[in-house]
Amino acid sequence: MPEIKIPLSVPTSKTSEYKRNYNLATAKTGRLLLIAGDQKIEHLNDDFFGSGISKEDANPEHLFKIAAGIPGALFATHLGLISRYGSNYRRLPYLVKINGKSNLGPNEEKNSSACWWSVDEIVQFKKQSKLNVVGIGYTLYLGGKFEAKMLAKVARAINAAHQNGLIAILWVYPRGKNVNEEDIHTIAGGAGVAACLDADFVKVKYPYKTKNNKLTAEKFKEVIAAAGRTKVICVGGDKRTSKEMIATTKEQLTISGTNGLAIGRNLHQRSFSEAVKLGQDLSTIIHAPQKKKRSTFLGLF
Amino acid sequence: MPEIKIPLSVPTSKTSEYKRNYNLATAKTGRLLLIAGDQKIEHLNDDFFGSGISKEDANPEHLFKIAAGIPGALFATHLGLISRYGSNYRRLPYLVKINGKSNLGPNEEKNSSACWWSVDEIVQFKKQSKLNVVGIGYTLYLGGKFEAKMLAKVARAINAAHQNGLIAILWVYPRGKNVNEEDIHTIAGGAGVAACLDADFVKVKYPYKTKNNKLTAEKFKEVIAAAGRTKVICVGGDKRTSKEMIATTKEQLTISGTNGLAIGRNLHQRSFSEAVKLGQDLSTIIHAPQKKKRSTFLGLF
Amino acid sequence: MPEIKIPLSVPTSKTSEYKRNYNLATAKTGRLLLIAGDQKIEHLNDDFFGSGISKEDANPEHLFKIAAGIPGALFATHLGLISRYGSNYRRLPYLVKINGKSNLGPNEEKNSSACWWSVDEIVQFKKQSKLNVVGIGYTLYLGGKFEAKMLAKVARAINAAHQNGLIAILWVYPRGKNVNEEDIHTIAGGAGVAACLDADFVKVKYPYKTKNNKLTAEKFKEVIAAAGRTKVICVGGDKRTSKEMIATTKEQLTISGTNGLAIGRNLHQRSFSEAVKLGQDLSTIIHAPQKKKRSTFLGLF
Amino acid sequence: MPEIKIPLSVPTSKTSEYKRNYNLATAKTGRLLLIAGDQKIEHLNDDFFGSGISKEDANPEHLFKIAAGIPGALFATHLGLISRYGSNYRRLPYLVKINGKSNLGPNEEKNSSACWWSVDEIVQFKKQSKLNVVGIGYTLYLGGKFEAKMLAKVARAINAAHQNGLIAILWVYPRGKNVNEEDIHTIAGGAGVAACLDADFVKVKYPYKTKNNKLTAEKFKEVIAAAGRTKVICVGGDKRTSKEMIATTKEQLTISGTNGLAIGRNLHQRSFSEAVKLGQDLSTIIHAPQKKKRSTFLGLF
Amino acid sequence: MPEIKIPLSVPTSKTSEYKRNYNLATAKTGRLLLIAGDQKIEHLNDDFFGSGISKEDANPEHLFKIAAGIPGALFATHLGLISRYGSNYRRLPYLVKINGKSNLGPNEEKNSSACWWSVDEIVQFKKQSKLNVVGIGYTLYLGGKFEAKMLAKVARAINAAHQNGLIAILWVYPRGKNVNEEDIHTIAGGAGVAACLDADFVKVKYPYKTKNNKLTAEKFKEVIAAAGRTKVICVGGDKRTSKEMIATTKEQLTISGTNGLAIGRNLHQRSFSEAVKLGQDLSTIIHAPQKKKRSTFLGLF
Repeated sequence: MPEIKIPLSVPTSKTSEYKRNYNLATAKTGRLLLIAGDQKIEHLNDDFFGSGISKEDANPEHLFKIAAGIPGALFATHLGLISRYGSNYRRLPYLVKINGKSNLGPNEEKNSSACWWSVDEIVQFKKQSKLNVVGIGYTLYLGGKFEAKMLAKVARAINAAHQNGLIAILWVYPRGKNVNEEDIHTIAGGAGVAACLDADFVKVKYPYKTKNNKLTAEKFKEVIAAAGRTKVICVGGDKRTSKEMIATTKEQLTISGTNGLAIGRNLHQRSFSEAVKLGQDLSTIIHAPQKKKRSTFLGLF
Repeated sequence: MPEIKIPLSVPTSKTSEYKRNYNLATAKTGRLLLIAGDQKIEHLNDDFFGSGISKEDANPEHLFKIAAGIPGALFATHLGLISRYGSNYRRLPYLVKINGKSNLGPNEEKNSSACWWSVDEIVQFKKQSKLNVVGIGYTLYLGGKFEAKMLAKVARAINAAHQNGLIAILWVYPRGKNVNEEDIHTIAGGAGVAACLDADFVKVKYPYKTKNNKLTAEKFKEVIAAAGRTKVICVGGDKRTSKEMIATTKEQLTISGTNGLAIGRNLHQRSFSEAVKLGQDLSTIIHAPQKKKRSTFLGLF
Repeated sequence: MPEIKIPLSVPTSKTSEYKRNYNLATAKTGRLLLIAGDQKIEHLNDDFFGSGISKEDANPEHLFKIAAGIPGALFATHLGLISRYGSNYRRLPYLVKINGKSNLGPNEEKNSSACWWSVDEIVQFKKQSKLNVVGIGYTLYLGGKFEAKMLAKVARAINAAHQNGLIAILWVYPRGKNVNEEDIHTIAGGAGVAACLDADFVKVKYPYKTKNNKLTAEKFKEVIAAAGRTKVICVGGDKRTSKEMIATTKEQLTISGTNGLAIGRNLHQRSFSEAVKLGQDLSTIIHAPQKKKRSTFLGLF
Repeated sequence: MPEIKIPLSVPTSKTSEYKRNYNLATAKTGRLLLIAGDQKIEHLNDDFFGSGISKEDANPEHLFKIAAGIPGALFATHLGLISRYGSNYRRLPYLVKINGKSNLGPNEEKNSSACWWSVDEIVQFKKQSKLNVVGIGYTLYLGGKFEAKMLAKVARAINAAHQNGLIAILWVYPRGKNVNEEDIHTIAGGAGVAACLDADFVKVKYPYKTKNNKLTAEKFKEVIAAAGRTKVICVGGDKRTSKEMIATTKEQLTISGTNGLAIGRNLHQRSFSEAVKLGQDLSTIIHAPQKKKRSTFLGLF
Repeated sequence: MPEIKIPLSVPTSKTSEYKRNYNLATAKTGRLLLIAGDQKIEHLNDDFFGSGISKEDANPEHLFKIAAGIPGALFATHLGLISRYGSNYRRLPYLVKINGKSNLGPNEEKNSSACWWSVDEIVQFKKQSKLNVVGIGYTLYLGGKFEAKMLAKVARAINAAHQNGLIAILWVYPRGKNVNEEDIHTIAGGAGVAACLDADFVKVKYPYKTKNNKLTAEKFKEVIAAAGRTKVICVGGDKRTSKEMIATTKEQLTISGTNGLAIGRNLHQRSFSEAVKLGQDLSTIIHAPQKKKRSTFLGLF
């Protein structure tokens, strides 16, 4: 079990709580298999019903079933779903996603700066529900007219989370007219912002559609370096085969130096049995025992 | 009397209060007959005075009289009317509608994000008035530039309601240039958002003008599934005959799997006697004893 | 002295305070003669200095002198003037107008949503000044991009007023490109909004320029009905002769069923002696003893 | 020493504090010689460095030296400068200017609604610094899209000032496309707004560039009348000769009925010795003993 | 060790804390060598990875290593990085940068008014981390539609900092269509604003690309004078040779009268050994013992 580097924004009185949450989130490996279940806001019902999607996915409980079937997975979703299904899935570690926006309306008006729930409300929920709520998640869009509000909101939320011994995971997406969202240098910039904001993990995009996968994974080290001691996990991306997913995840972990994967549609659009199989395979490579090593980025580059 | 699934956002100390409110709202059946009385804001006096509208509807007390005449109905309206007439209609269960907007001005400027009253104010009102205030109602428009504010406001309001043992009902309407408000897939998206927000019931549109009613009711299962453990009720829609209303409501309940109906204009634009007759008929089919069954959506689909 | 119907938003501990304020405001008749003195904000100095305006009107004390000369009048103005002149006019009942906007700048930018003073501040002012501050006044514009803020602000302000035993009077003006501000149906809509907001009185426009005054007064019953148990008072309108004012006020009271009049420019642009004469004549017809009767609107219509 | 008319917004417990501050501000004469030192925000360094400006003006201490050299002057500036120089100029009465904006950027975007410091912060500063902080100053622009915010902010600030025994001075400037900022009728409107807001003094523009100075001063009585019991002081305007300044100030005081003068650039752009000479001359005519008289405006007009 | 002029906004109970922080920040010399490490927000990864940039700069720890290698340097960065690396660099004095914005999106939408962390949060962080957090930093853009918010936010933040014995450093940049950001007169205006806001130090631009360096340094006295008792430090600017940096810094210190330098890219884009060498050289000239002298600006000019 790797040593946990506790940020100084966690008070001494909450150190053990933070460690417990961190270990629950990462299956004591320091690495995340994050089941991202916030698409019911982000994509409404598009990701859950339609051709190519398992009929089981129509019901939100499908998400809970899958998460419960994958050892070591951390399930991230909004408070409402946890409030409704949590009592039947008490063993799961939960990350409460505290913002979100739908896919309706013009892009430039889209804004999800406000936190739906304060950290105090989440702490209260954790206390009364007795669920394993380990932390908060927030999607940060860099660029555009809502950036300032988002940065301020999330900085406060992360600090409040740490003050309460919770972990904080940021989804960071640079946006704007001239922004190439799959450019590694730009992604690295977003990862660096997460570091400045004291996030424990940052979830970023990964350029999956490249000719040379190994070269991409190598170049992606820029992102890991920029994030400093904030750990990087990659989004699962559009639907791919299980084999492809496992291959690229391995490359990310071993070449780039990521610390896990976030997976949403790629998981829940499959049937329960297929999803659990894929999830277990991913858990095996993510949560496998690692050799303890010092960061060697600077020397290796 | 069906078992009530209490959300984890209700603290143990408020469980019995929540159950009491839930039972008052649903006549102990788990199903709602919601008398929506918020049109004096939404449509000003257009729904209450004019050709084809009973002259009795000119006076807001008409709404209270009708609601009092229908056993098991839940009356939803703004605090002002309850404050003025409540002392004469003490047996009614009330749902306080906490936002609203008029029909004046350009659509893109319309915004009703702010909560007119905090949950604390409503709890105080309930305490001092000794009325059966069972919960709060909020209209959420998805899409457009006010979505972010609305989502944050309503998430907090629902959580505060549950913390106080009140139930929360969302009116959810997707909006925007390319949005087909009667598209079942889009409606399902809105229902899913309500689930993520921890609403107890979500009131959505229903595509009444279709060729094949049974097929529509069948397809509408997508909405019920997307809402998960949040129950779905349909709006009553434009004025239709009592016979039509009863027929479609039956289809919604038995085929789609809705848990009730919201009815406004279709009720109060009628004379007191006609309205009460229709309301009682609807109550009969909505509040009739149901066989207790497990959700079988996934299997049946 | 007519019975006062106390709204349930007034707590029991404040019932007698509310009754006292209500009686002071209405000279124990349940009807208002409201001296509207908020034009120094709304029209700057245009209403107070110029041709056709008594030179006495240049000084704001003119308003206090007139109000003091009319028995039973309620004087509505901003806190600043009350703070400066109140010690010399201690017998007057005061209504504190808590918002306002000037007549400068483009219409679409105009906004007076914010409350200048909180109800707490007004309660504190009442306590320390020992003046007869009976309540608050707020101008609500329906339609346009500030409607949402205004509705939320005023709902809270009215509730806070009632919690403190103060009365609340709304000025309600529908606005917008296609809005006919003198249309009775539209005015009725505004009156209904005031009822939903729990206002004690609503001040609305009246279509004075009509061919058949009695028919207009008859049609205006729609407004009274829409307001429910919130009482309606009409604005005094542009400058008219005393005779005209008295005639239309009588029609409003006896035919339409209004409960008083608001008068501003029509009063203070006259000399002190003329203004007091007109005010006393209006008081005579407004505050005259009425036969106690049950609301018969529904039956009479 | 003229009697001080204390506004009712000052609680009894703060009456003596208010009187003390009022007397310090006005050298016990009820009249103000206000040294306006807020141009480092309003005009950045344009007023302090360049041709025609004394080199001494480059350093902000120049302002303090001048103010200290003029008996009876009240020095208005932002908290930062007082915090830095106040310990060397302990005898000066200070008015803390609590808002401001620079001269950069397009006019329609300019906004200085927000209060930089709360009254509580200023009271705390006064207590810990032991300086003679007598009150607050705020610049209010009427018209335009920020009017609503400004009105609400300043109303609260003035009330808070009075609650703490501080005086409040408003800079009131009507603004907008069709606004003639030097029109006396418009200026009178602004003065009336200050009265409604409970300001102790209102600083307004004066039409200096007129053919007939005495007629202008006579017409300016409209402003004094509109302000009621709020006293009016005029801005010093663009740079003029000392002789001109003294002449027009006399006319304002004796003909119009103003209660003082605000002077900024006209003072500090001169050398220390010249500035002090002019200031002392102005103090002589402003702070000279006046015969106590009742307001005779209405009769004289 | 020069005497510290303590602003009156620091309460007596915090005087020794303020002095301690001031001395830690300035190596007891009253002059700053500020290592500006906020570019991971301002420029994302552009300043840290690419051609001409040392590969060591890819990892944020590079910044800490350099800062630790330069005696007397003050390291300014966001809370997140301090939270992650602070435990390994406990001797460093830290300035927490409390706002920031990325370089994405159109300029006119850019806004960084909001404070990411309140001063209370920073004080709490300091207490629990036991790090030498000496103060706060804020970037203020003058001009444009966010100026009002920024001014209000920063004024409160500085006051809160001083109330807690922390120092406050402002980055002040005038912005706008017709603004020449390297114009000395404009820079002086910004420095004056910092003085009005009670900043301890103000970081401003310096016109490095001039023909006559000494004349520029001489003209720059306008800035020093305008800042009054707020001390001025210059930005390091684009990458220049060590020799050039040292030469211009000397001119700034000895001719203009600045009190230090801020350096970011010019430092961390070099290798660790080069950066430390340059930093030590700068420290030598900045932190060298100075002869105590009174401000002689007015006399010398």
